[in-house]
Amino acid sequence: MILLLGASGYIGEAFVRELQRRKSNFRPLSRKQVDYSRFDVLLKFLKETKPEFVVNVAGFTGKPNVDACEIARADTLAGNALLPQTIADACAACNIPWGHVSSGCVFSGAKVIVNGQTRTEKDLTRPDLRSLVEQSPDAIHGFTETDTPNFTFRDPPCSFYSGTKALGEEAIAGIGQSYIWRLRIPFDEFDSMRNYLSKVQRYEKVYDNVNSISHRSDFARACLDLWDRRAPFGIYNVTNPGFVTTRQVVDLVEKILKPAKRFEFWQNDTEFYRRAAKTLRSNCVLDVSKLLATGVKVRPVIEAIEDSLRRWKAEG
Amino acid sequence: MILLLGASGYIGEAFVRELQRRKSNFRPLSRKQVDYSRFDVLLKFLKETKPEFVVNVAGFTGKPNVDACEIARADTLAGNALLPQTIADACAACNIPWGHVSSGCVFSGAKVIVNGQTRTEKDLTRPDLRSLVEQSPDAIHGFTETDTPNFTFRDPPCSFYSGTKALGEEAIAGIGQSYIWRLRIPFDEFDSMRNYLSKVQRYEKVYDNVNSISHRSDFARACLDLWDRRAPFGIYNVTNPGFVTTRQVVDLVEKILKPAKRFEFWQNDTEFYRRAAKTLRSNCVLDVSKLLATGVKVRPVIEAIEDSLRRWKAEG
Repeated sequence: MILLLGASGYIGEAFVRELQRRKSNFRPLSRKQVDYSRFDVLLKFLKETKPEFVVNVAGFTGKPNVDACEIARADTLAGNALLPQTIADACAACNIPWGHVSSGCVFSGAKVIVNGQTRTEKDLTRPDLRSLVEQSPDAIHGFTETDTPNFTFRDPPCSFYSGTKALGEEAIAGIGQSYIWRLRIPFDEFDSMRNYLSKVQRYEKVYDNVNSISHRSDFARACLDLWDRRAPFGIYNVTNPGFVTTRQVVDLVEKILKPAKRFEFWQNDTEFYRRAAKTLRSNCVLDVSKLLATGVKVRPVIEAIEDSLRRWKAEG
Repeated sequence: MILLLGASGYIGEAFVRELQRRKSNFRPLSRKQVDYSRFDVLLKFLKETKPEFVVNVAGFTGKPNVDACEIARADTLAGNALLPQTIADACAACNIPWGHVSSGCVFSGAKVIVNGQTRTEKDLTRPDLRSLVEQSPDAIHGFTETDTPNFTFRDPPCSFYSGTKALGEEAIAGIGQSYIWRLRIPFDEFDSMRNYLSKVQRYEKVYDNVNSISHRSDFARACLDLWDRRAPFGIYNVTNPGFVTTRQVVDLVEKILKPAKRFEFWQNDTEFYRRAAKTLRSNCVLDVSKLLATGVKVRPVIEAIEDSLRRWKAEG
């Protein structure tokens, strides 16, 4: 039996659907049923039910967005650092392998390779870098799992959310047998407040940046594939291969959904942070070579976006 | 055997001395010997050595003072929230009772009772409250263990240090069998950068406030007495009974040590925070009725300060 913690959330739903599709024997568990944030409660439950694998999708993301985590600091820390450690400890005590949904937003920017020189740039909105993204996309490389997160409490500035996600990774790394799956900005065909493609359509103005992003079902499938294949434990970036600019996303929305609305963009970062955001946002490119090298298949990001928009289901 | 984690720190030293005085069978453990911040390492160690009781004195306090915790946020969180949770989990898995040194600085202010009305005041430096402290000290009452901490991420503003200490308390409360011992501003007769009586003598100017404080050896003794008596597990405020103003401390220093230096005070909070401090300080009064009701004896704060100053040993 696979035990699924946090099944009712946005990413949890995708795991439920994927596990149903696979006809896997699984059990979703909510904190209302069993308070798995308490070590002794979880330990007892694991000893009684003996799952073969545990998936933790629970975490604190902030509503309506990550700005809320700057205020709800205790809940953000409890959900993203203390909870994963509790699960790591309980699974280690029972010798149960498990996987944790972390976030690629522990990074900012990308690695830029120009004239054979590699450097890390934290802000890809800078005009010269933005031109590079458009004109020489091959110069933009994602962060790998061996790179040290650079948008964290240890490497500030960062958002409080990102700081706690990085701390959660540290808290569980090396304890027992665990996967750390890094998600980035989920999307799919179902209109939702959490869907990136919905957000882009609903923003008053769009913030143009550069990101690797994760199709929600592709993500759940890839994570479970890693376990099915018994890939080595450790960290995996789990996004659709490649990266997109928000402008490219808007172009695809206009081409496929043909909305009446005309999209406007914030002129620059200064305007965006003054008007629309309280805390710094992580915008980053991730490298998924490690994931793909295990044999797990994930479609390229543009293909996944186009497919989602073609199947678009408005909320209602 | 009593296992002592964090024995080399300022408070750890006091536990070592007290355990030696009692001729207790104890084992100090440093993270260099065994990295007890890693759950599986600690779990294995506990299973092998089977201590009857574990004392955790380790934590991250910031050097030279709490302002450093605003910068070293990851270490502050790891040391004060994640580490206690790891110890709680490992002790719970082995059914070993333990005690954790927390801090009274999860509170700010005091309860003020005037005309039979109780209200909480977070800032006792306000002129009308300061007069009350001087003229009607009986109106000032400490926070008890059933009061909810009010200088935390859940009840801001707070310092980052206090936020993490409160989170550490939350993380271990209700897991297994544990004492949470709240220390406040340690002092004794040994001149040291960590000794409150040394700090008061070395400040460029003194910040006049109102606090319950803990004599270092009295604290260690009281904590171990609680375990010896098998007092009920849970939170205990462990300060010397009563409270003092910094001005009273300065008066005692002048009377007993007769220093050449003339003490100056910051005019007010605004000047103090502009010139001498980056983050908010916790200044608070704690109620120790729960501790005393167990039969544990602790001398009144003025007696402990006078005794420390009479035995004063300059560093060297």
